[in-house]
Amino acid sequence: MHKIQKPYLLFLGDANREYGAKTAQGVLHWVPDQCVGQFRLPGCEIDLGIADMDFEEAYAAGGRTVLLGVANRGGVLPDHWVPHLIKAVKAGFDVAAGLHVRLNDLTCLKAAADKQGRTLHDVRHWSGGPMPLGTGRKRSGHRALIVGTDCAVGKKFTALAVHQALVEKGVDATFRPTGQTGALISGYGCALDTIPGDFISGVAEALSPDNDPDHWDVIEGQATVLHPTFAAVTIGLVHGSQPDAMIVSHDLGRTEMRGLPGRVLPTLLDTIDAHERAARVNNPKARCVAISVNTSAVDEDAAQTALAEIEQMTGLPSTDPIRFGADILAKAILDTMEPHNE
Amino acid sequence: MHKIQKPYLLFLGDANREYGAKTAQGVLHWVPDQCVGQFRLPGCEIDLGIADMDFEEAYAAGGRTVLLGVANRGGVLPDHWVPHLIKAVKAGFDVAAGLHVRLNDLTCLKAAADKQGRTLHDVRHWSGGPMPLGTGRKRSGHRALIVGTDCAVGKKFTALAVHQALVEKGVDATFRPTGQTGALISGYGCALDTIPGDFISGVAEALSPDNDPDHWDVIEGQATVLHPTFAAVTIGLVHGSQPDAMIVSHDLGRTEMRGLPGRVLPTLLDTIDAHERAARVNNPKARCVAISVNTSAVDEDAAQTALAEIEQMTGLPSTDPIRFGADILAKAILDTMEPHNE
Repeated sequence: MHKIQKPYLLFLGDANREYGAKTAQGVLHWVPDQCVGQFRLPGCEIDLGIADMDFEEAYAAGGRTVLLGVANRGGVLPDHWVPHLIKAVKAGFDVAAGLHVRLNDLTCLKAAADKQGRTLHDVRHWSGGPMPLGTGRKRSGHRALIVGTDCAVGKKFTALAVHQALVEKGVDATFRPTGQTGALISGYGCALDTIPGDFISGVAEALSPDNDPDHWDVIEGQATVLHPTFAAVTIGLVHGSQPDAMIVSHDLGRTEMRGLPGRVLPTLLDTIDAHERAARVNNPKARCVAISVNTSAVDEDAAQTALAEIEQMTGLPSTDPIRFGADILAKAILDTMEPHNE
Repeated sequence: MHKIQKPYLLFLGDANREYGAKTAQGVLHWVPDQCVGQFRLPGCEIDLGIADMDFEEAYAAGGRTVLLGVANRGGVLPDHWVPHLIKAVKAGFDVAAGLHVRLNDLTCLKAAADKQGRTLHDVRHWSGGPMPLGTGRKRSGHRALIVGTDCAVGKKFTALAVHQALVEKGVDATFRPTGQTGALISGYGCALDTIPGDFISGVAEALSPDNDPDHWDVIEGQATVLHPTFAAVTIGLVHGSQPDAMIVSHDLGRTEMRGLPGRVLPTLLDTIDAHERAARVNNPKARCVAISVNTSAVDEDAAQTALAEIEQMTGLPSTDPIRFGADILAKAILDTMEPHNE
């Protein structure tokens, strides 16, 4: 499991508008106090609105890891960025990236990092010895897992917002990422989607280890067990997380599964049923406790109406954490541990 | 997907009795006419009971691929076997192995193979360009998938026996392996257990492509969707195979899951229900049609009694294909395509 030193210097290179900056924006949004500045080369068309710094300035400002915050289609690293990353390593930085290509495969960069005793974190790839096999053994502490009706319906946002709401209520809670952006936000974890099938549940188990009896892990979800492409990752994650509580993420504006034209989105009731059945393989008490709905497709009045309808249909508290905050979701999780609900 | 030239010369090296010879024995059992002989070094303690040959003799006898048929704990290849494999390549052979280590990573062997234009098949590892993503698109032809209550309950045996029974009935059928031994028996395929989670259903789809309307693929199963360790592989396989019919493999002598002390084996009814639910994500008509029971733990009378009880409980035809043949299972598969059952 990667353990990444913060704070970050966000590396944008000379990325043009064709590049995606989701990773940099996500990290800046969720941990702004852990981003000392941005590093840009001449011609860069992206601006995160934070201080431009070179490596020496950023190191002096406390920065410890250069984070590759942009990606082009294909997840390839431009050759002419490598000398700059080598300079970063020589200035004392670790480097972290969530690309398909591995920093550790770039011979010159790797040699420089080894010489300086620095670490290159490829968070899409497993690090830390042999991958573990799942056992299903009951672990101490509590776990909430975000599940959903599809990919990209707001699971990461929901997990982060619920984690924040729990912490604000004074609950001892940890956000557990399962994708590259989440891992870079938290500085801990590993993207699950590149793990071989035999080891997915084992890596998921390792991600939320034994903890204090009152501690909550809030675990980012992936896809859905009803997904024709990605369900293998989901079920390994559901089994390995052994959640006490699940929150179902849903996008009000979506009728077909993303990237699968003609494929009808699973219903919320089918999604709840399928995930409860999967989770009960390792925890007979597992249940879905709330619905997190992305209502951005409609105005606020229509959103309230839709949420009321979803509450009626599912019997579960429902809200849009972006529009109305995550308190209702955090409360639903904590309620699962009330004696009358056990 | 690997396509391996047959027949084989079975390479046993100087394996002692600590080695497992399951792969060599499995290949010899199922395709004896595709095994020209065995290659043994002085000190070898394993004997498959077929002709000993050197590479020149085996090539002259028609052999085209040297198959590494034994494995030590850890799946490591002894260094002193490599020069012999290089000799094999120089004699005109491809080499195939189902080890965790890759033949293609052995620099000297790889160089020799490239020079001779020979292929090294690492059937535990994907070969053939970018891995495909599953789509759930309905494919032509029929598919039967073997599922089960646990790992190592006889899925591969059942798949091979059912395939053989179908062929004997004049049905156009193909055995589709999903593990290394199966891939070496059939000379086609890829072990699913090392495929990253995102691609398992896609590789499973590629394994049983569009076919003639009356053709049956009989697909080897893996683990169970109720397995706390390996369900990710299973669900990707169930989704990607989009089976019309499933046969449930079960071991009468087993009460706990293999390698998971204290973990009660799922019931047959729960196993049927869980696999039908998973398969219906891509094929609403998917159903379990028969039970394949390993009854080796009891005598023949007790086996008959147990099979009758299982038929009563599940409402499905049940037999032990080792003891009583696979005809009942093959018939149950074909019956799914009778108009009154559709």
